Amino acid sequence: MKGNDEMFGEKMRIMTENPLNAETPPGYLRSWITAHSVFFHRNQSELKQRVSLNEYRLSIGGKVENPCRFSFEEILRLPKAIQANTLECSGNGRSLLTAPAAGNPWTIGGVGNAVWGGVWLKDLLEFARPNEQARHVAFEGLDEPAGPAKIKFIRSFPLEKAMGTTLLAYEMNGEPLPLKHGFPLRVLALGWVGANCVKWLSKILLLDRPFEGHYMDRAYRVFQKGQDPKTGEVVTRIPLKSIITQPLPGEKLKTGRIVVRGTAYGGEREIDQIE
Amino acid sequence: MKGNDEMFGEKMRIMTENPLNAETPPGYLRSWITAHSVFFHRNQSELKQRVSLNEYRLSIGGKVENPCRFSFEEILRLPKAIQANTLECSGNGRSLLTAPAAGNPWTIGGVGNAVWGGVWLKDLLEFARPNEQARHVAFEGLDEPAGPAKIKFIRSFPLEKAMGTTLLAYEMNGEPLPLKHGFPLRVLALGWVGANCVKWLSKILLLDRPFEGHYMDRAYRVFQKGQDPKTGEVVTRIPLKSIITQPLPGEKLKTGRIVVRGTAYGGEREIDQIE
Repeated sequence: MKGNDEMFGEKMRIMTENPLNAETPPGYLRSWITAHSVFFHRNQSELKQRVSLNEYRLSIGGKVENPCRFSFEEILRLPKAIQANTLECSGNGRSLLTAPAAGNPWTIGGVGNAVWGGVWLKDLLEFARPNEQARHVAFEGLDEPAGPAKIKFIRSFPLEKAMGTTLLAYEMNGEPLPLKHGFPLRVLALGWVGANCVKWLSKILLLDRPFEGHYMDRAYRVFQKGQDPKTGEVVTRIPLKSIITQPLPGEKLKTGRIVVRGTAYGGEREIDQIE
Repeated sequence: MKGNDEMFGEKMRIMTENPLNAETPPGYLRSWITAHSVFFHRNQSELKQRVSLNEYRLSIGGKVENPCRFSFEEILRLPKAIQANTLECSGNGRSLLTAPAAGNPWTIGGVGNAVWGGVWLKDLLEFARPNEQARHVAFEGLDEPAGPAKIKFIRSFPLEKAMGTTLLAYEMNGEPLPLKHGFPLRVLALGWVGANCVKWLSKILLLDRPFEGHYMDRAYRVFQKGQDPKTGEVVTRIPLKSIITQPLPGEKLKTGRIVVRGTAYGGEREIDQIE
């Protein structure tokens, strides 16, 4: 089975190893579907424990009438939803900005499109019955506390999105979700940036307000120099974007007919036309 | 990365090793997309030579004004088409028939759906300019002559289909087409059974009539007992079919709510509704 790597001849561009942050090579962005072997990695932390499907439980608690836990088998028995969804890191394209911004130096490869299989979060929340105070949903994974300050990567978003187009995915492009992409279960807030899509999901907590913590208050907000990050807007929807995937910057071309390829994506919005 | 195989816990069911004939396990038929790692294999013959992309050429000859050859790089430079397409072996389901039929004992796993990238055959044929006598297009791959009689697996179909919805695929689910699935180039007569989709494609021949040979005249025709196979109808379009993928025959179920899953596919026809 050697030889067919020659075709694209490209490897993921690794920005950091521990935790793994790496972007998809441009040749693989010329397809509608992004294979998991080259799908971008964005991690604040690392998964260090072994995940055992038999022992795995997903708990739902907080502002609910019926706190509950699900085994993986119970989740598999629920009706399955299959959705194509583009996932993007909110920092994608950062290195191409004229004004420098701190963080991983993404070019255009912090984005990918896959066909995900799983269950609607709504189906689980309806079983847990959010109470009248519930307004936000927080998600926690099995990964280690992140960074030098050892803070768990916990994210929340509004209940409305959680009861709408939010999938808990256990399958990616027709295969079990790879461990590196969040096996056994990953939150997928469809059309929203990856920061809302907690991997290795193990705990769901219903809250009366957004979760408060470093990864909600200091990170993943849009703020200006000198502004308190906490007053900035939280990143949610993927904005309308387009990229040229062929030819690449600096590429030397032969004279004659040149094929130009690219793609556009719009998060929750559909693209009607590209000019 | 161990552990996530537990989820489906299924391997392909191998019917013969040399050549490889194997079907997709049912757990993987519950997705819209079939990963190449479990996509069914149906081979009359085997590829024994090493495929070198630098040396690879696709030739087009026969009833054309402009016999020509394309390097792989030239093919890659052409406009790219991306199509989702269900591929099925014409013998799929054979072992479930009440009247026994000769051939590989397929159950329901001789079918798969993938997102294919490649070039429209039409774009190459227009360059070769079929002449006024051209009516059919024959395809030959790099695989060895097949069976005890050592006959090349050559197939043809009408020019109309070749100039219409026929893709030459070099990509499968966002990755270079795997060698086992026909790398570097595979014919994909969209919506037609796999017998029309020659792997490891190296030669295209325009003809004034269907290609004559064992794999056109004796095989892949529908005929009754005692009938001369050559008078039977050639298998082309995938017929309308539906399968239940969960629960499986003989599976023991717990009492309570049972999720039933299945899928329908119709080759060139779209499915509007499943009852």
